Amino acid sequence: MDYQSILKEIKLEIEPFLSEGNVADYIPALAKVEPNQFAMTLTLFDGTTYSIGCSDTKFSIQSISKVFTFTKALSLYGKKIYNKVGKEPSGNPFNSLVQLEYENGIPRNPFINAGAIAITDSLFTHYERDTFDNIIQFIKDISNNYELDYNEEVWRSEYECGYRNSALANLMKSFGNFENDIESVIKTYFKQCSIEMTTFELSRAMLFLANHGVDPITQKRFVTQSQAKRINAIMLTCGHYDASGEFAFHVGLPGKSGVGGGIVAVVPEVMSICVFSPRLNSWGNSLVGTKALELFTTKTGHSIF
Amino acid sequence: MDYQSILKEIKLEIEPFLSEGNVADYIPALAKVEPNQFAMTLTLFDGTTYSIGCSDTKFSIQSISKVFTFTKALSLYGKKIYNKVGKEPSGNPFNSLVQLEYENGIPRNPFINAGAIAITDSLFTHYERDTFDNIIQFIKDISNNYELDYNEEVWRSEYECGYRNSALANLMKSFGNFENDIESVIKTYFKQCSIEMTTFELSRAMLFLANHGVDPITQKRFVTQSQAKRINAIMLTCGHYDASGEFAFHVGLPGKSGVGGGIVAVVPEVMSICVFSPRLNSWGNSLVGTKALELFTTKTGHSIF
Amino acid sequence: MDYQSILKEIKLEIEPFLSEGNVADYIPALAKVEPNQFAMTLTLFDGTTYSIGCSDTKFSIQSISKVFTFTKALSLYGKKIYNKVGKEPSGNPFNSLVQLEYENGIPRNPFINAGAIAITDSLFTHYERDTFDNIIQFIKDISNNYELDYNEEVWRSEYECGYRNSALANLMKSFGNFENDIESVIKTYFKQCSIEMTTFELSRAMLFLANHGVDPITQKRFVTQSQAKRINAIMLTCGHYDASGEFAFHVGLPGKSGVGGGIVAVVPEVMSICVFSPRLNSWGNSLVGTKALELFTTKTGHSIF
Amino acid sequence: MDYQSILKEIKLEIEPFLSEGNVADYIPALAKVEPNQFAMTLTLFDGTTYSIGCSDTKFSIQSISKVFTFTKALSLYGKKIYNKVGKEPSGNPFNSLVQLEYENGIPRNPFINAGAIAITDSLFTHYERDTFDNIIQFIKDISNNYELDYNEEVWRSEYECGYRNSALANLMKSFGNFENDIESVIKTYFKQCSIEMTTFELSRAMLFLANHGVDPITQKRFVTQSQAKRINAIMLTCGHYDASGEFAFHVGLPGKSGVGGGIVAVVPEVMSICVFSPRLNSWGNSLVGTKALELFTTKTGHSIF
Repeated sequence: MDYQSILKEIKLEIEPFLSEGNVADYIPALAKVEPNQFAMTLTLFDGTTYSIGCSDTKFSIQSISKVFTFTKALSLYGKKIYNKVGKEPSGNPFNSLVQLEYENGIPRNPFINAGAIAITDSLFTHYERDTFDNIIQFIKDISNNYELDYNEEVWRSEYECGYRNSALANLMKSFGNFENDIESVIKTYFKQCSIEMTTFELSRAMLFLANHGVDPITQKRFVTQSQAKRINAIMLTCGHYDASGEFAFHVGLPGKSGVGGGIVAVVPEVMSICVFSPRLNSWGNSLVGTKALELFTTKTGHSIF
Repeated sequence: MDYQSILKEIKLEIEPFLSEGNVADYIPALAKVEPNQFAMTLTLFDGTTYSIGCSDTKFSIQSISKVFTFTKALSLYGKKIYNKVGKEPSGNPFNSLVQLEYENGIPRNPFINAGAIAITDSLFTHYERDTFDNIIQFIKDISNNYELDYNEEVWRSEYECGYRNSALANLMKSFGNFENDIESVIKTYFKQCSIEMTTFELSRAMLFLANHGVDPITQKRFVTQSQAKRINAIMLTCGHYDASGEFAFHVGLPGKSGVGGGIVAVVPEVMSICVFSPRLNSWGNSLVGTKALELFTTKTGHSIF
Repeated sequence: MDYQSILKEIKLEIEPFLSEGNVADYIPALAKVEPNQFAMTLTLFDGTTYSIGCSDTKFSIQSISKVFTFTKALSLYGKKIYNKVGKEPSGNPFNSLVQLEYENGIPRNPFINAGAIAITDSLFTHYERDTFDNIIQFIKDISNNYELDYNEEVWRSEYECGYRNSALANLMKSFGNFENDIESVIKTYFKQCSIEMTTFELSRAMLFLANHGVDPITQKRFVTQSQAKRINAIMLTCGHYDASGEFAFHVGLPGKSGVGGGIVAVVPEVMSICVFSPRLNSWGNSLVGTKALELFTTKTGHSIF
Repeated sequence: MDYQSILKEIKLEIEPFLSEGNVADYIPALAKVEPNQFAMTLTLFDGTTYSIGCSDTKFSIQSISKVFTFTKALSLYGKKIYNKVGKEPSGNPFNSLVQLEYENGIPRNPFINAGAIAITDSLFTHYERDTFDNIIQFIKDISNNYELDYNEEVWRSEYECGYRNSALANLMKSFGNFENDIESVIKTYFKQCSIEMTTFELSRAMLFLANHGVDPITQKRFVTQSQAKRINAIMLTCGHYDASGEFAFHVGLPGKSGVGGGIVAVVPEVMSICVFSPRLNSWGNSLVGTKALELFTTKTGHSIF
């Protein structure tokens, strides 16, 4: 398939929408991003990549980091991790405390905020002070790219207004589902969210999930085949907060979005994808990014359905 | 692949679990079913079928009928149907009124009870008194089987204790999201649930959803390619009530279960499947049926992830 | 105290507010009422009454009827009635299904719709087809007035759009907390709501609750002293839906409002009161009625606090 | 009335229940209290007191402190305080986050935990580092007793496991309804809860609320007549968490309980009361204390209803 032409078509078709939606503005550092950007990268199993737009521009990966920390926790703890966090869609906004209270402090899945914080807490139990170093090292390994870093200004400003995430952590701790010092875990969580990557790098980082857990280029295995299948399943059912059904419906690929404007997705056994555009739709997912992926699966037939 | 051998292996492996779980007993007529039954049928695009167990035994399709009525409504109304019913997982039990009230009488998706009743109401607007006849005719058409019928005793006894479904319908009507006489719609709904089919028949009926909306044997088109993709997406994210994530996670196929013990599933572009075993797990899905499907995707690799 | 002068002062002070708020318009028959009316009546233990405004104008008593049916049920069943309905404030709108579902079909108190319907259901168990006749007879007895009637048009139009109340009844029935035919009970419930009385008549009807259960004029006892105390307590904590705290705070008397614009209240050991003005505030209570009662307790010091 | 004889009768009648219920055990320091204690004190307007049981034993006032901080905040800020905290019963457990999230971080009333923490936050805005000193000084003033102190061990151990209260504070802060440093406010809140008083002292401290805001002995005014009326109204409708209706129903007096086993109550224009017994009923209120107050109002007729 002529992927480069398809990317060009997509770029033309999404252009009228580049000024719709709004950049996340709850922290000043995120609000400063140039809003009308667009980039998209495909990475095939032989290492071939197709890119369009600003695919070398770093952006804040934000909740996409939840895929990587959950992968790491699953490889460390196996099924035991599901005692701490569920695997069902939540039917509630990403940061709601309601369901967490009704369900005794066990978050519904690892991709809502409470679940991701619980996962970082579980990594902290293992790595202690070195938790963040191990998280970024893992992302370097899966992306085969050792130049990654996080943004000091972004994580600090998120931390300073992260009261709702502290509320979630305290509520889990009150139910006994939190093992470490809340402040340390929350800091680590905001650091992982502030890591900056390009669509080129993020697309590469997801390749192992399109290939049953093994990087098809380096042949390194990161999780078992069964675990890879399950991460993909949770991305499909829970990857886009309370618009996960909408995303499965329109795009039909396992994926995960972040409020920085990035969305990653995998076409099982074919490729991994990353798209970036900072303006968000009403559910907090990249508006143009979602459209671009919908166009991509329509044009290529690469839906899993 | 030697599907017959795989079915034999599955039958051996599920046998120790045949006495686990409980048959739905909220209506006497369903509780009378022989509990330790098991059947499974695969239907390929060329019409080849593989069956094991009591694949000629009729059972109550119950909520599996929701797939067929939703398909019919989607083909009648197109996207307009989403004004009446959403497409997000609910995060709540299948018959909850809570979310329906918070969300102004718009059910989350067509596979929870409120959503399915709303869909039957939409069909009633079109077909009026002939709604049930048109529903069963549609199932006859997609299954290419004109011997289907419903069970008078089952629908009557469900109707007589269906207060919660009446509560859902009344609540939707109070929000203006219900167009017809409640009693007539509820009766039709319970009739569609009481239709009886075998795994052989149900597997055949789902084939068009594995083939982009076209029956690959008769070449009849029932919905567009895009609509078929979306029905599959909603089955994956919402097909098993509050265990939809669990099912996506363990099985990894679009599917729909019924409290009669049946589960249907599709392997896109490959085949359709039906499994039957009456005892249910704690989420109201066939316990052995779920296991059988999990074994099937593990043994064949036929997961979409 | 010169009550007639106080009533005159109140009338002057509330006049600027007579055009604020809106008449209940969810049924045509209620919406037709002349909106800027006002009436207030006080009844003392010796039978002396003080009235101002249109105290001879009949209006729909609506939810005020819940006080009378609860009183009747309490006198019939004693404490057993609390197995069927609670006595706590609900913290939710008057017609919410949410709490009813979370709390297994047991309404929080007899003054929210679900609770009042449950009470009418309990009366139906005793009086069967004669339930409504016994309800209106009881109101005639306590008001010592045998000229009361209900409004055919009002109850029919409420019944025809009473889907939410049917939802509540069906939900209770699904939990086993409903004994009789839903349609018959709901019809009786709407009939009791459509009874029409004047402030003069309603004030008289409440006198026994100001006097420990005994009508101080006829000396007839309707409930025990302890039961009267408890009815007053529930009126204070639950009598005004989700503005009960607000009413206790501003007025400081046990009372009950109806969407017809009436409010009844008692000053224990002193008098009973009824005020009427059809425009409602945002909680569904008479706007001017609430103000008039607040002025009354401020001017007379007749608060219970 | 012969109050001393009545207290003796009450003591005899509650004795069979002294071993029912359980002492609050969520913090070790509270769990150590001798469980079968009982004390009750009445204080009349002329300073006469009647006591029975261990009325000189200090106990942890816990949530009774919420009455005093709310009184202080109301006298400081007047009606403006209701922008920060409501005055409606909550219909939910005392420490629930659910309603706080649905209602945008505004607690329902000052007597649930979230509301009391918001009140302490408002005092902190005024008194800053001296907030606790001013709180205890105010309690000394209203009780005319300058020997009060708090328990270092109790507040520290509550603080160390106070994750749910931190969750509430963080959630309010995320909604912009929290002005000061969370840790400092929470520490102050736990200190105020750990103040220790006897029934003799607490009964004296409540006297101004029985007398329209003025201490009838010293003639000092602490709040206006209108404010006193409103504090009493909120105690009646919200003073006992999700058993406030129950308490109004059985006791019929404005009151406030604490998990330390104390309950204060006022008989408007007559007296103030404090009862103490550490074992709690299922709603977290003193089991014997509630019974003793019910007996008291039954024997004396001193209910407000």
